[in-house]
Amino acid sequence: MWELRSASFWRAIFAEFFATLFYVFFGLGASLRWAPGPLQVLQVAMAFGLALATLVQAVGHISGAHVNPAVTFAFLVGSQMSLLRALCYMAAQLLGAVAGAAVLYSVTPPAVRGNLALNTLHPGVSVGQATTVEIFLTLQFVLCIFATYDERRNGRLGSVALAVGFSLTLGHLFGMYYTGAGMNPARSFAPAILTRNFTNHWVYWVGPIIGGGLGSLLYDFLLFPRLKSVSERLSILKGARPSDPNGQPEGTGEPVELKTQAL
Amino acid sequence: MWELRSASFWRAIFAEFFATLFYVFFGLGASLRWAPGPLQVLQVAMAFGLALATLVQAVGHISGAHVNPAVTFAFLVGSQMSLLRALCYMAAQLLGAVAGAAVLYSVTPPAVRGNLALNTLHPGVSVGQATTVEIFLTLQFVLCIFATYDERRNGRLGSVALAVGFSLTLGHLFGMYYTGAGMNPARSFAPAILTRNFTNHWVYWVGPIIGGGLGSLLYDFLLFPRLKSVSERLSILKGARPSDPNGQPEGTGEPVELKTQAL
Amino acid sequence: MWELRSASFWRAIFAEFFATLFYVFFGLGASLRWAPGPLQVLQVAMAFGLALATLVQAVGHISGAHVNPAVTFAFLVGSQMSLLRALCYMAAQLLGAVAGAAVLYSVTPPAVRGNLALNTLHPGVSVGQATTVEIFLTLQFVLCIFATYDERRNGRLGSVALAVGFSLTLGHLFGMYYTGAGMNPARSFAPAILTRNFTNHWVYWVGPIIGGGLGSLLYDFLLFPRLKSVSERLSILKGARPSDPNGQPEGTGEPVELKTQAL
Amino acid sequence: MWELRSASFWRAIFAEFFATLFYVFFGLGASLRWAPGPLQVLQVAMAFGLALATLVQAVGHISGAHVNPAVTFAFLVGSQMSLLRALCYMAAQLLGAVAGAAVLYSVTPPAVRGNLALNTLHPGVSVGQATTVEIFLTLQFVLCIFATYDERRNGRLGSVALAVGFSLTLGHLFGMYYTGAGMNPARSFAPAILTRNFTNHWVYWVGPIIGGGLGSLLYDFLLFPRLKSVSERLSILKGARPSDPNGQPEGTGEPVELKTQAL
Repeated sequence: MWELRSASFWRAIFAEFFATLFYVFFGLGASLRWAPGPLQVLQVAMAFGLALATLVQAVGHISGAHVNPAVTFAFLVGSQMSLLRALCYMAAQLLGAVAGAAVLYSVTPPAVRGNLALNTLHPGVSVGQATTVEIFLTLQFVLCIFATYDERRNGRLGSVALAVGFSLTLGHLFGMYYTGAGMNPARSFAPAILTRNFTNHWVYWVGPIIGGGLGSLLYDFLLFPRLKSVSERLSILKGARPSDPNGQPEGTGEPVELKTQAL
Repeated sequence: MWELRSASFWRAIFAEFFATLFYVFFGLGASLRWAPGPLQVLQVAMAFGLALATLVQAVGHISGAHVNPAVTFAFLVGSQMSLLRALCYMAAQLLGAVAGAAVLYSVTPPAVRGNLALNTLHPGVSVGQATTVEIFLTLQFVLCIFATYDERRNGRLGSVALAVGFSLTLGHLFGMYYTGAGMNPARSFAPAILTRNFTNHWVYWVGPIIGGGLGSLLYDFLLFPRLKSVSERLSILKGARPSDPNGQPEGTGEPVELKTQAL
Repeated sequence: MWELRSASFWRAIFAEFFATLFYVFFGLGASLRWAPGPLQVLQVAMAFGLALATLVQAVGHISGAHVNPAVTFAFLVGSQMSLLRALCYMAAQLLGAVAGAAVLYSVTPPAVRGNLALNTLHPGVSVGQATTVEIFLTLQFVLCIFATYDERRNGRLGSVALAVGFSLTLGHLFGMYYTGAGMNPARSFAPAILTRNFTNHWVYWVGPIIGGGLGSLLYDFLLFPRLKSVSERLSILKGARPSDPNGQPEGTGEPVELKTQAL
Repeated sequence: MWELRSASFWRAIFAEFFATLFYVFFGLGASLRWAPGPLQVLQVAMAFGLALATLVQAVGHISGAHVNPAVTFAFLVGSQMSLLRALCYMAAQLLGAVAGAAVLYSVTPPAVRGNLALNTLHPGVSVGQATTVEIFLTLQFVLCIFATYDERRNGRLGSVALAVGFSLTLGHLFGMYYTGAGMNPARSFAPAILTRNFTNHWVYWVGPIIGGGLGSLLYDFLLFPRLKSVSERLSILKGARPSDPNGQPEGTGEPVELKTQAL
């Protein structure tokens, strides 16, 4: 529980709240339909991607800029953060998302609000297909995040923010037609609660959570293995203090900061 | 007043004049409507973003490439430049913006000029909503600038120019429908003066100035605190000479150059 | 045959399978037509480019992220991998592509599937013209890959992933009208086998293979020569073990890893 | 004349020929109109920008990837290359451009060729306005190139290729409506010679040449001065051999390579 007494911990929680507020505000807002006409898929996909890129650039060094419960879940599965931190991140993300949607609601003319860019299934897509699509969308996204944040890499990786943001854009270019491209339970939750429409809402939790967890396992165990013992993993999960020699095995310093080293 | 005798100071002022001229010339010019049809939001948003990215790349190391009185105000609030320098920057930006709009006016066929891409409120949006939107647009933009220019960071941050430019693009993808996306009082001022239309013009000053100041305070005091004493801040504000041991507290070298270290 | 006993070899093969599955899933999926209207060329071109960029970022350090038999052929011609590795890569890519198209088929409503974004010649384009176009598309792509991956360079090269992805986007912006922009035999093969339509299919093998081989020779022998003796090249081709002093001439360490040094 | 006996000189000439061929092939090709409908400005602007970005990435370290007589003229004015090299570059660029347009002509169905994306003035734009526009387009472009290639900079500049490519995209987003966005005499020359249409063709030489020269002078003398004596400049212009102590003043090594240091 030492984390709760750390200022950097609370700054990270605030950063997640704040960043998710902005993510939802900009993402949903750029998806609203002000005029009839075809869906502007590239425009919306770029808005989501650049929103994430901007937020990773702005608060990545503070919280890792997850902005997404599925990403936080993936980092938890990958033993890169404590359970306490993960739960606080997720709560902050959900609150931030609802706050962002509420601000958006209040600044938008009623005629334009529509369903606030609620994620919905295309009529021809079954819930099974939709869940599969959300798994694939989130899987590539989390793999890209894990590979980009990986502190063991040393190549010409360019900007973390753009890599991660464009991976989100990719997910939207594909997924908007099928499911509206959730990829983020907080983003899906906010308009659902404001419009009180939870039809098939579980798809936008189950899909990204499975995709995120799968991406984490795939990267850490199969594609580019990390050697961490079970006791090491448990100790990180319990939030062992980095400088605590009992809780923390030798050779690994400051586990909770690993994920922001690239930022 | 030592700054006024420095060649690099005047080069920075000229760079701000010149860059804002180009920013307004390219941004407004790419927003003109040559043919009927739907508003090309992504195209205009990319034009503003790439204009800023190009100018940050071109003159970022000379003046910091603020190109925007709200950004200069944010750096002033963040004690990263002297009051004298900030006022000169703002004057250069406003002059540059008007010059850019004037050049645009002179090279554009009368039938295409329209209102020179004047920022206007959507009919359904109130001035309060519009000001809120401008605050949010500028807040994310200034946070991104502060985090990207932060000389304390050392990660895979990629190009400063693209990070900042794409944050501006994001603001336009959202804001063009609501307010035309000002985010920059100089950009809003130039077409207003050429078309003599100042309806709701104050929104485009108040919103970005509040958003910029808020972003600066949020980043420097809450998200990623900088430890600067009040006397240190005052000394920077007064434009203390970097090498002057009286005006400049120990431990901080060349304050006016901090903001361009990343460029 | 020592490679077959190396875990990193099999991880690379799996990465190629997996990445090509995702490349085809996202690329073809983003090309489907959900509504009548003009072809969204920029949107599709960005989807392919960002799919590749994301995969290079995600698995580039594991396999080099070829995701493309023509690229693997180019690296083989450039003596950057063994024949055994090249053949395994190509098999994995083809299997991955078919798997990706099959998953896409299963999650897509029948009315939308169409020909699964099969590459077809524009009615006005002859097979000779189409092959020439595919050669040019792949030639610029492979040159960009070779120059970007080149471990001898040390400049401001930015992100490998974006450089390579945007080169693919460029190919699509030009080629989609002529040939649908194959540039990748695995991508062309997958919808052909699922729709059992192999009309002019050879164009999408011959063009990219010639373009890839030509790009490799042009870069390595003319534009930026590499000094490798014939015996050295043969030894790499045969998969000489890096640490084997007999099979491996002096002065070159770990040839099979060269191509991922930039990643 | 020592340069003529250097293999790297001829590789640079070939790279310019080759890169301009590809630049014109892809840029013009992506501008063709395959179907009626509004001009796809963003799509064409991205095609030109990504074509240049890809070529800077591919051959920037070989020749500097000017791909443009106006850029070569700017580097000549900035004393960054010899007169002999500049003239050979320009000849290679013009030949390459014509070759690229010829290949494009041969692979394109006659009904689509149109005027091969010839640069033409908008009916409402006078030649004076058009020349001014071309000057501004090229000025920002050359300033961006000079600042990005500047070997004295050491910040978070990101990819040279994307910076330069997106500056070209910006020019097209503005200029396509006015003049078709030349910004490059070789690009304008190629379709003019193939369609034998030289109406107002001088605008596309005079504008970019003035803009390029102005950008060079502005950057080197005003914005970020380089201290080079007249004798030093003359010696570079005459192509003094880097290691020649008579022709080359002390303290400056390998002048002709300066411009590719960032690549």
